[in-house]
Amino acid sequence: MAAPARDALQFPDSDSRPIEDYLPPPFGVQITRLDYFDKPFVTLTFATSLDSQLAIAPGVQTVLSGPRSKAMTHFLRSKYDAILIGVGTAIADNPSLNCRIEGVGGYGGEGLVGQPRPVIIDPSGRWQFTEESKVMRLAKEGKGKAPFIIAGVEPSNTRRAVLENVGGKFLVLKLSGEGIEKAGSTWHVILGALKKRGIQSVMIEGGGFVINDLLGPGPAYSLIDSVVVTIAPTWLGKGGVQVSPDGGQERLPVTRLQDVRWLPLGEDVVLCGRPNVSLR
Amino acid sequence: MAAPARDALQFPDSDSRPIEDYLPPPFGVQITRLDYFDKPFVTLTFATSLDSQLAIAPGVQTVLSGPRSKAMTHFLRSKYDAILIGVGTAIADNPSLNCRIEGVGGYGGEGLVGQPRPVIIDPSGRWQFTEESKVMRLAKEGKGKAPFIIAGVEPSNTRRAVLENVGGKFLVLKLSGEGIEKAGSTWHVILGALKKRGIQSVMIEGGGFVINDLLGPGPAYSLIDSVVVTIAPTWLGKGGVQVSPDGGQERLPVTRLQDVRWLPLGEDVVLCGRPNVSLR
Repeated sequence: MAAPARDALQFPDSDSRPIEDYLPPPFGVQITRLDYFDKPFVTLTFATSLDSQLAIAPGVQTVLSGPRSKAMTHFLRSKYDAILIGVGTAIADNPSLNCRIEGVGGYGGEGLVGQPRPVIIDPSGRWQFTEESKVMRLAKEGKGKAPFIIAGVEPSNTRRAVLENVGGKFLVLKLSGEGIEKAGSTWHVILGALKKRGIQSVMIEGGGFVINDLLGPGPAYSLIDSVVVTIAPTWLGKGGVQVSPDGGQERLPVTRLQDVRWLPLGEDVVLCGRPNVSLR
Repeated sequence: MAAPARDALQFPDSDSRPIEDYLPPPFGVQITRLDYFDKPFVTLTFATSLDSQLAIAPGVQTVLSGPRSKAMTHFLRSKYDAILIGVGTAIADNPSLNCRIEGVGGYGGEGLVGQPRPVIIDPSGRWQFTEESKVMRLAKEGKGKAPFIIAGVEPSNTRRAVLENVGGKFLVLKLSGEGIEKAGSTWHVILGALKKRGIQSVMIEGGGFVINDLLGPGPAYSLIDSVVVTIAPTWLGKGGVQVSPDGGQERLPVTRLQDVRWLPLGEDVVLCGRPNVSLR
């Protein structure tokens, strides 16, 4: 085993144990689904302020959670086959999307063991990545897996070359038009495609559009197996990027979690739960 | 001691102990203030959804917190000389504003021991209360103190008669115009007036306008000694009454709490903290 990288993070067992029930099997609980659909285990995870904001303004990366919550995020990443984000977050944050927990590949471990596959949803090809984008550079350095980009249109040869050069690939899917309703939702198409490529578990990290879409009253909601939300003791104030799903016509509470656990972690709290489908 | 009322609530010591540091002296910690201003000890307390909403729509009372958090609110009420709300909440909720913890006056205890003084801020006389309004009825029944209404204009003789008939009174203060800036803010005027009338501690409970005004970037912010926020594991969805202060021009995080404690309580979590004035 190689020496741990100096930027490796540690997350003690005492902190991780209460979260394990919400992780994919075999760590977490096996979920029996009534609505059988062959998809990965899906956890929705993000960090907000007390006023439910992901960022202080659109496109501005905002550090909210403290060091222990940050270590938790990286611990979670080591337990999933993939991390998924929307294109808005890819553009705004230039994220690393790798796992830096001590002992995973690139951080003391061999190869890419414990590294999740970054998945970026970019239906119309808005993300102007280069080989210098963080996620590409980390893949080249052996500190993370190369990304899959889920596209709705065929990419240019240039973009394809940059991505395939680091070992990534485009998954071109039919993300709109006829057939989506039959599939259930765009999310059914995306998650079904990932499962077919062997991805057994996905951690969906953001951003605002993706989270609100999944928590909203549409059919995608039933695809979430667990949520892990970090809340920091700060009010960011009006005008930021907010998590608050569309309430739909009925103005009923959109989502009540069940099987709830609150875990104070440094100055933050971590909320684990499962969406209560029976409320919908 | 009279028999406890059947609707009396209980809040065990094991739940209350971690909150006591955030209560007024002698229960809580004596706060040394640099900006000396003779005011009551002020705690801001409210319950929100995960998307920081107090109610699913304006004017719609929304039950968010579970039984243990509800008991906590009543425990808190027994520790303060007054509970303060804005007129919007008085109109929307027709609130009781009394304390129903077992052992206080009207709930097993003698007289009005442990009952806080309800204070309603109604600058322009919008609240059309009658002797049947809950807070008036409870005062008449000996289950709560009669309210003080803070007004910016002289009330009609009819309104004054209804209020004084249950033992309450109007405090007519200069709440706008010249002099407010010199005082610091409208909140300085209000809290100063309450202190002069012997009120040593105030629990400010809402609603949205009052909370956002106090958490916002104005001078009122420095008047808050502690906050106790209950968060329920529900997303209400867009369109409700939201706690999110005005960020002001600078778009800095409005309020970071210090001395933070998170207390899981049933399905909810209770956040205790003190505003970090040094961030402003």
